[in-house]
Amino acid sequence: MSGASSEGGGRRRGPSVAELVERARAGEARAVARLISLVEDASPKLREVMAGLAPHSGNAQIVGITGAPGVGKSTSTSALVKALRATGKRVGVLAVDPSSPFSGGALLGDRVRMQDHALDAQVYIRSMASRGHLGGLSWATPQALRVLDAAGCDVVLIETVGVGQSEVEVARLADTTVVLLAPGMGDAIQAAKAGILEIGDVYVVNKADRDGADGVRRDLRNMLALADRADGSWQPPIVQTVAQTGQGVDEVVAKIEAHRTWMESSGELDRRRARRARDEIEAIAVTALRERWGDVHARTELDDLAAQVVEGSSDPYHAADQLLEAFTE
Amino acid sequence: MSGASSEGGGRRRGPSVAELVERARAGEARAVARLISLVEDASPKLREVMAGLAPHSGNAQIVGITGAPGVGKSTSTSALVKALRATGKRVGVLAVDPSSPFSGGALLGDRVRMQDHALDAQVYIRSMASRGHLGGLSWATPQALRVLDAAGCDVVLIETVGVGQSEVEVARLADTTVVLLAPGMGDAIQAAKAGILEIGDVYVVNKADRDGADGVRRDLRNMLALADRADGSWQPPIVQTVAQTGQGVDEVVAKIEAHRTWMESSGELDRRRARRARDEIEAIAVTALRERWGDVHARTELDDLAAQVVEGSSDPYHAADQLLEAFTE
Repeated sequence: MSGASSEGGGRRRGPSVAELVERARAGEARAVARLISLVEDASPKLREVMAGLAPHSGNAQIVGITGAPGVGKSTSTSALVKALRATGKRVGVLAVDPSSPFSGGALLGDRVRMQDHALDAQVYIRSMASRGHLGGLSWATPQALRVLDAAGCDVVLIETVGVGQSEVEVARLADTTVVLLAPGMGDAIQAAKAGILEIGDVYVVNKADRDGADGVRRDLRNMLALADRADGSWQPPIVQTVAQTGQGVDEVVAKIEAHRTWMESSGELDRRRARRARDEIEAIAVTALRERWGDVHARTELDDLAAQVVEGSSDPYHAADQLLEAFTE
Repeated sequence: MSGASSEGGGRRRGPSVAELVERARAGEARAVARLISLVEDASPKLREVMAGLAPHSGNAQIVGITGAPGVGKSTSTSALVKALRATGKRVGVLAVDPSSPFSGGALLGDRVRMQDHALDAQVYIRSMASRGHLGGLSWATPQALRVLDAAGCDVVLIETVGVGQSEVEVARLADTTVVLLAPGMGDAIQAAKAGILEIGDVYVVNKADRDGADGVRRDLRNMLALADRADGSWQPPIVQTVAQTGQGVDEVVAKIEAHRTWMESSGELDRRRARRARDEIEAIAVTALRERWGDVHARTELDDLAAQVVEGSSDPYHAADQLLEAFTE
């Protein structure tokens, strides 16, 4: 098969989902882009895409990159791509940070061109619109990660702005979470307050050539030492970098790899992935139920129940029981 | 009945839910506080409380008060309480704004004392913790509104910080939404960008004695004029106030009453309340399902499905179908 296939009768069609999956696995960027678009647009083919990807999942290490605006997240992501490429890895980047130069592409179109990596066929960069101005992740993020995973990426970096609950969401999606800090950009104590000291597997103090970097590192080390960790558990390392020059970035890559090795041997990788799959299944099931309730038939039932609640002959809890009874068979 | 009742055998118990509902309807603040605590803590009696309240619901006009920090929301709320009391109304206040002096009580304890109204038995003020640092509303907010409604409040003011999605959430809970602006505090164009020009039923330009108030009013009027409204629909009025002195506040009260009259005659009140009941029923049903999935038995099923997704023999959509099949009967 090559080019657009034409199935059935006279009408010409685009490539089938199976074909797209094959091409994506062979490293064809256009097929990857197409699959992510199908997922992101919640196209009727969404289920077919997900079923087609399933057998090819589970190779990629999903690495979340998070930190407050200004810590040098985009520069660090770019430097990490370069360092990962130098070790021969195929790399995917999913940018969901609205302030990131990568994610400008969410407005411009499919694929973001990133100067250093635009011509490298082993790097696939994709931006996604965030869900809203609160900076949360798009519902399609896990699905897009599956596309990049099935497409043969060894590592997928997911970059998000460190605002609100998106760091926590990223940590739940990732195998390994890298938390970035920088001197003067909200210090380690601020980070502790924001709760990000609980989610990092690797800590990076970027802009290590600036005043205050050692102080941030020291504060961070002291705070991490307070955490009560079981024997044999992972001790999150702290790496100092200057992302702009690449200094220290190889060490970050080494720590990310060490974390994967530890996760595999300790069983933590399986646990994290199982939890992720549960989250994903639950979220899809809830969405499916809401859609059912939105159907014409169910809508009538829900309207009737709502009318009873409004007039006071029923209460919302009783009505919810009846809704579940009526529409979950 | 008076004091704590003692039902059944030797153990002394607190008042029954039916008794609390009766006392709350008679205007006893402690009973109101107790009922809200029962819903807020998701106590085992939650369902009983909701069933007990249902026949007494639907009297109160729920008025949402929203606006950016600094527009004078708390002062306006206090002035509105005073003006509503002057018309003989019984008033409830639910404060979910973490920056509001009212809602300090969410940390301090049950009931917030507000200098001007603390001794007025016809005013009930309650603060609620917001759901998180993103400023969303607590899941228990609709339930707490039902308590205040059943307790005989004619008007319930719900005050929330104008950040993120909480304004929209408040508008969905309210019969009437009052949007506050003030000169210098993020102008009307900012408000338009934030989407709050779509949710207001009454607009208030507070701090009308300051420079720029007329400009805010003019911009606001121009922008509201752009909205495409059907014949006979409500034209949101703009009122200028100085909440600190009470200037203009009676007019706000008059507009709130006019809005209720219009809503009743146009059928909009019924539509809004039906939509609200539907939202509430759906949210409770989804929570109930998630709880079922969290049960030991369901957990095993969900774990099995997650394992299949992790190993690639199933995909999340297929697994979600199976989850719904297995646990919604």
